[in-house]
Amino acid sequence: MLSNHFQNGVETVRHAWSRIPNSEESQFVDDAVGLVRKSDGSSVESLDYEVIENFAYREEQARRGKLYVSYLLVVKWLFALLIGIGTGLAAVFINLSVENFAGWKFSLTFSIIQKSYIAGFLLYALINLVLVFSSVYIVTQFAPAAAGSGIPEIKGYLNGVDIHGILLLRTLIGKIFGSIGSVGGGLALGKEGPLVHTGACIASLLGQGGSTKYHINSRWFQVFRSDRDRRDLVTCGCAAGVAAAFRAPVGGVLFALEEVTSWWRSQLMWRVFFTSAIVAVVVRTAMGWCKNGNCGHFGSGGFIIWDISDGQEDYSFAELLPMAIIGVIGGLLGALFNQLTLYISSWRRNHLHKKGSRVKIIEACLVSLLTSIISFCLPLLRECSPCPESDPTSGIECPRPPGMYGNYVNFFCSSDKEYNDLATIFFNTQDDAIRNLFSAKTIHEYSSQSLLTFLVMFYSLAVLTFGTAVPAGQFVPGIMIGSTYGRLVGMFVVKYYKKLNIEEGTYALLGAASFLGGSMRMTVSLCVIMVEITNNLKLLPLIMLVLLISKAVGDAFNEGLYEEQARLRGIPLLESRPKYEMRNMTAKEACGSGRVISLPRVVKVSDVVSILRSNKHNGFPVIDHTRSGESLVIGLVLRSHLLVILQSKVDFQHSPLLSDPRGGDRSIRHDSHEFAKPVSSKGICIDDIHLSPDDLEMYIDLAPFLNPSPYIVPEDMSLTKVYNLFRQLGLRHLFVVPRPSRVLGLITRKDLMIEDTENVNTLELQNRHHNKRPTTRNSDVERPLLNGLLVGSE
Amino acid sequence: MLSNHFQNGVETVRHAWSRIPNSEESQFVDDAVGLVRKSDGSSVESLDYEVIENFAYREEQARRGKLYVSYLLVVKWLFALLIGIGTGLAAVFINLSVENFAGWKFSLTFSIIQKSYIAGFLLYALINLVLVFSSVYIVTQFAPAAAGSGIPEIKGYLNGVDIHGILLLRTLIGKIFGSIGSVGGGLALGKEGPLVHTGACIASLLGQGGSTKYHINSRWFQVFRSDRDRRDLVTCGCAAGVAAAFRAPVGGVLFALEEVTSWWRSQLMWRVFFTSAIVAVVVRTAMGWCKNGNCGHFGSGGFIIWDISDGQEDYSFAELLPMAIIGVIGGLLGALFNQLTLYISSWRRNHLHKKGSRVKIIEACLVSLLTSIISFCLPLLRECSPCPESDPTSGIECPRPPGMYGNYVNFFCSSDKEYNDLATIFFNTQDDAIRNLFSAKTIHEYSSQSLLTFLVMFYSLAVLTFGTAVPAGQFVPGIMIGSTYGRLVGMFVVKYYKKLNIEEGTYALLGAASFLGGSMRMTVSLCVIMVEITNNLKLLPLIMLVLLISKAVGDAFNEGLYEEQARLRGIPLLESRPKYEMRNMTAKEACGSGRVISLPRVVKVSDVVSILRSNKHNGFPVIDHTRSGESLVIGLVLRSHLLVILQSKVDFQHSPLLSDPRGGDRSIRHDSHEFAKPVSSKGICIDDIHLSPDDLEMYIDLAPFLNPSPYIVPEDMSLTKVYNLFRQLGLRHLFVVPRPSRVLGLITRKDLMIEDTENVNTLELQNRHHNKRPTTRNSDVERPLLNGLLVGSE
Repeated sequence: MLSNHFQNGVETVRHAWSRIPNSEESQFVDDAVGLVRKSDGSSVESLDYEVIENFAYREEQARRGKLYVSYLLVVKWLFALLIGIGTGLAAVFINLSVENFAGWKFSLTFSIIQKSYIAGFLLYALINLVLVFSSVYIVTQFAPAAAGSGIPEIKGYLNGVDIHGILLLRTLIGKIFGSIGSVGGGLALGKEGPLVHTGACIASLLGQGGSTKYHINSRWFQVFRSDRDRRDLVTCGCAAGVAAAFRAPVGGVLFALEEVTSWWRSQLMWRVFFTSAIVAVVVRTAMGWCKNGNCGHFGSGGFIIWDISDGQEDYSFAELLPMAIIGVIGGLLGALFNQLTLYISSWRRNHLHKKGSRVKIIEACLVSLLTSIISFCLPLLRECSPCPESDPTSGIECPRPPGMYGNYVNFFCSSDKEYNDLATIFFNTQDDAIRNLFSAKTIHEYSSQSLLTFLVMFYSLAVLTFGTAVPAGQFVPGIMIGSTYGRLVGMFVVKYYKKLNIEEGTYALLGAASFLGGSMRMTVSLCVIMVEITNNLKLLPLIMLVLLISKAVGDAFNEGLYEEQARLRGIPLLESRPKYEMRNMTAKEACGSGRVISLPRVVKVSDVVSILRSNKHNGFPVIDHTRSGESLVIGLVLRSHLLVILQSKVDFQHSPLLSDPRGGDRSIRHDSHEFAKPVSSKGICIDDIHLSPDDLEMYIDLAPFLNPSPYIVPEDMSLTKVYNLFRQLGLRHLFVVPRPSRVLGLITRKDLMIEDTENVNTLELQNRHHNKRPTTRNSDVERPLLNGLLVGSE
Repeated sequence: MLSNHFQNGVETVRHAWSRIPNSEESQFVDDAVGLVRKSDGSSVESLDYEVIENFAYREEQARRGKLYVSYLLVVKWLFALLIGIGTGLAAVFINLSVENFAGWKFSLTFSIIQKSYIAGFLLYALINLVLVFSSVYIVTQFAPAAAGSGIPEIKGYLNGVDIHGILLLRTLIGKIFGSIGSVGGGLALGKEGPLVHTGACIASLLGQGGSTKYHINSRWFQVFRSDRDRRDLVTCGCAAGVAAAFRAPVGGVLFALEEVTSWWRSQLMWRVFFTSAIVAVVVRTAMGWCKNGNCGHFGSGGFIIWDISDGQEDYSFAELLPMAIIGVIGGLLGALFNQLTLYISSWRRNHLHKKGSRVKIIEACLVSLLTSIISFCLPLLRECSPCPESDPTSGIECPRPPGMYGNYVNFFCSSDKEYNDLATIFFNTQDDAIRNLFSAKTIHEYSSQSLLTFLVMFYSLAVLTFGTAVPAGQFVPGIMIGSTYGRLVGMFVVKYYKKLNIEEGTYALLGAASFLGGSMRMTVSLCVIMVEITNNLKLLPLIMLVLLISKAVGDAFNEGLYEEQARLRGIPLLESRPKYEMRNMTAKEACGSGRVISLPRVVKVSDVVSILRSNKHNGFPVIDHTRSGESLVIGLVLRSHLLVILQSKVDFQHSPLLSDPRGGDRSIRHDSHEFAKPVSSKGICIDDIHLSPDDLEMYIDLAPFLNPSPYIVPEDMSLTKVYNLFRQLGLRHLFVVPRPSRVLGLITRKDLMIEDTENVNTLELQNRHHNKRPTTRNSDVERPLLNGLLVGSE
């Protein structure tokens, strides 16, 4: 019987071999299972969210008691705390640096332009150039994954695809220092997207207990090695990033929920919420500390929070029309922004950036120079306006005192009592420009000409800057663009509606919301973020209205910014809803035919090596035969696990016989840590493993290593249902099998309600009874399922 | 071959028969599949969220073009709009009525107590009694499902179990008028929970195009007949209810997300958000209309929104200790509340309410009397305090003018310049009492003695009232209790911390948050609701802190209020996380053995009738045989569909032969509407169907009616994974099958990305190409999967 088994095994391998494409074809088929080749050569790999219930896992589960569950709970909450503190501190550090660099830059420039505008410009452009150069240098030379906002990549990670390098320590460092340079250097980009990525990196590094490459890891922290646990941590990190960027804890939770994650559990919500709260406390403490003057220029600028609580109190129905117009403009400009950035980034990726990192550096420096020229010289061309009648109670001075932030910048003006409205928004940090645009009680500060000029120039700059090799967020530029046209509409409303209680700043806020809605297509989270950063709840219905319109208009043209960018970068996001045409396809049609490479249960090492070399599939079904000769699918073995087995060699055996499942030391040869894949890296490669000719002649019994129960679907299930299964459970592999011949049982809700709910009278008694139940069940721990399999097939 | 088929069919039935338990046993096995018997005799049924891809469905899908998809989209958004408007109007109506009744009651009482306190009390008690009686009468006689808050039932519905009667028109009417009576009658309960139920009812009724029983339905609206579509509508309705109850649109969305729904899709979020926005607009418009005096007493009281934006601006770290103490108190009192209400409701259900509706009426009336006595007589025992130095700028008068709402109620005081602090909170509508407790700038208004008395008495009343047969929400009583002890703590803080910027009202707010957190265990949604109703964003981190503590403390003792109540009512909620012990169980163990009753493909009518009579299973596997005699599971047929087939009789055939799948009129005999189950009712019963002896001798070919591809799991999959599949996809039936013998294919992410993402160069070209793809696929519509099945098995 045993030789029969052996024979069967070899045959299965041969059968499998016959289906393996030859090397000419292989490049077309390589990508078939779980691996998508990206256009720039880097690869994207699916994550394993499914629990691999193999022998090592079961052993570990059996060893763990109830105490371990509590321990895990404590560690999870501790991690949430640490992620919050870490992200909060990172945000404070970035803010501090940016504000100090920018403040120092502007005050130096202002002091020099008192003498010479040309020298002032040169200095201004030089500082910007140095900052941007430092950023692009760090990114290109040290952390290429830190370029861009990182949100599409994180979104991809949480959707189930790992883009190599996005969650490494070097990426974190590159992101932090890169965004200080790029934002401090005055480019038309923000620090919010990078902060989200920073939060995710911190979470992931904490989860693996530090960086493995730089040996700063602690074993104590390494409890979350599975992709599933990491997903939760990264979700926390994302929310923390948003909470830190906008000081919007609820907004952070909602952002993580709506925009980034693909799966969500309500227990996680609670933990994410906690992380956000911690971030809020950390940031608040830091701000209190800075108020005492410990942080240089930081005290006055810094964290985005544009308090417009003294804005418009009420609105009339007549105002809804201009607000709706703002929504439409937002949708149109946002969709256009997405389309333009898509073209430009696509061109950059395929032509410019292929030429190496020197081109990237030159490009970023040129963009920086252009930005300096526009932001400095355009205000020079603009005539100054006389200061309005000053109202001493409002606390707004005109012109603002030198070296301070505020409205009414005196720039290239002939008289002291004049201000340059274009300089007020252009020649300023972006946070401050937005504060000026949102400001209430400053009606008629800007001329429509200035705003229009600014809108066109800044929009072009933002499009141009998008995709350069620096960390870049789109929130702040979006708010800038939106608030400019919003304020423009507001000016017209003030002019034509002739009512006193209309504030242009309120319209600027609505404009900002509309542009973000039109570009990023977020709804609830954006709404809450806008409310939290402006600290004004009364505008909620108006923001909702504007967002509804702008998103609907934008959706008519293209997808959201992050989805477009993810597609461009070759990140295969699975949407939550199956495509309509899937209703008419079957599972079998989708997976094609003749591509499955199966392994027998006991397989020769040389066969494994050949199979692993000849294709890039990540999962292999394992087929065994019953005593009566029928074949039986006994599970799925992962490429990464096979590689671990080949590398360690301890499981090799000389005979093709089945190993004794009761073999004492079998279980302790591996623990589940060995099978854990390192985050964001490629793991072991088949070419790294060197086996002697003797090794190649040996055999491996795969049964202890396989996932005995992958999810299965019958061949003619409609692809819609398959998609739902795959997407909802976050799977990586799904077996398509023939229709079953029998139904052994039906599972319904009742069968899954382990706690009985029927009898209320004996509720308390039953409760005690129920508490006992698990202990009786625990006897099953001694008899893992796989044992049954091992014995049954002998 | 055909006779062979027949033979096989009959054998399968016989085989099935042998497994059917006899009548003595049947009462124990009845509940096995999808049906859970509740302790009070009413039954709970699982919902079918899975798409039944039967012939009728496929026909319909094939008929529908792309245009239909757009039509569906428009209708969905129209429904969201209508749900918003409907719920908003219902909320306005309830509020208007309650405020008018209560205002009229209090002003009448106040005018009479100027002469006689006894006459005043009698009138007061009488009005309360009449209102409560009307409420309990409506509920017991007309709409029994309208009792209680309805949130556990709605939660159950969205988790996948239908409790008969909860979404009917009569329940809606009972809920609206019942809660007017119970809230207007001064009981210790709120109108917010009932409003959530009201929103859900409105949504469900809209979804089925009106009430079928009362023939107020329009065919045009009947596009959403599946449980899946209804689930989305009900989710919208829930969010609308919360948005209307608290004027908290974002809170509404989050409540629906966190507390009520079990499944969530981000497209749905967008629609839910829209509904909430509509509600906010409707309510705002109504309030504007009422401000002009069109609504009686409504203008001043009404919608909960306790503006404490003039509250505490800042907080010091020293204050975090008392705030943490508030959190702990909230957790303890909340958990105690859950436990006490659980005991009392359990006792009520098992003893008191079994005696019929008269007992329920008497009980509610007694509770009303007791409430009247306590709220009237306790303040009488309390000595009045002299009015504080009046500050004319604060706008707070002491005592308040008669017939107005406000602080400093003059009740049974000897002097005109005195007020009764207990009466200020007790002898008032609850909304107003909360406003008084939250009020800033009124330090030392309450004595700790009064607050303590109120806390104890109101807590007891709230526990006692819970579970009476009237519509009852727990939000407002929770806020009352919480804000009382919160204000108590605040008083101590004011006394011992000796700082000027501490407002007792802020502590009252935190107390309210802590009690709700300790009882309902909501987190993010509650936080947002609290912020939205108090219109003060600055307190967000504090509310978060308090909620974190109170939920953690509460969780140490028992489950949340809604979960406890759902369990008490026999609603089998599937939690999002599988139980720990499921890791060591297999699918086969869970479903037991020998309980599956299969049907052959062509079955005799009399056999169907016998099977349906003899058990209450809701799903039956259908087994067919291939030419070579192997058995093959071809799908699942639902009891409800069998009943429809039996009732219509058009599918009966004389011979046990397979019907011709190409038979022209087969497809038009049924459309999918016929198979749609009416909402919240039991549908057809087997005893309602009368068949002649001739009919019983005929046969049915089940192939066109079955769901050809129910989800399957292999027998030895761990129950954790089975649970995840069942819960995440919202299934009702799941087949447990033997391990497959072959793997036909592997589905990976790549196979599900129908749009290609590989080549960026040809993005535009490919886009055009992709747009064509669906049309080529559409040719498959002509060849539904089932046809393949029908032909293949011939």
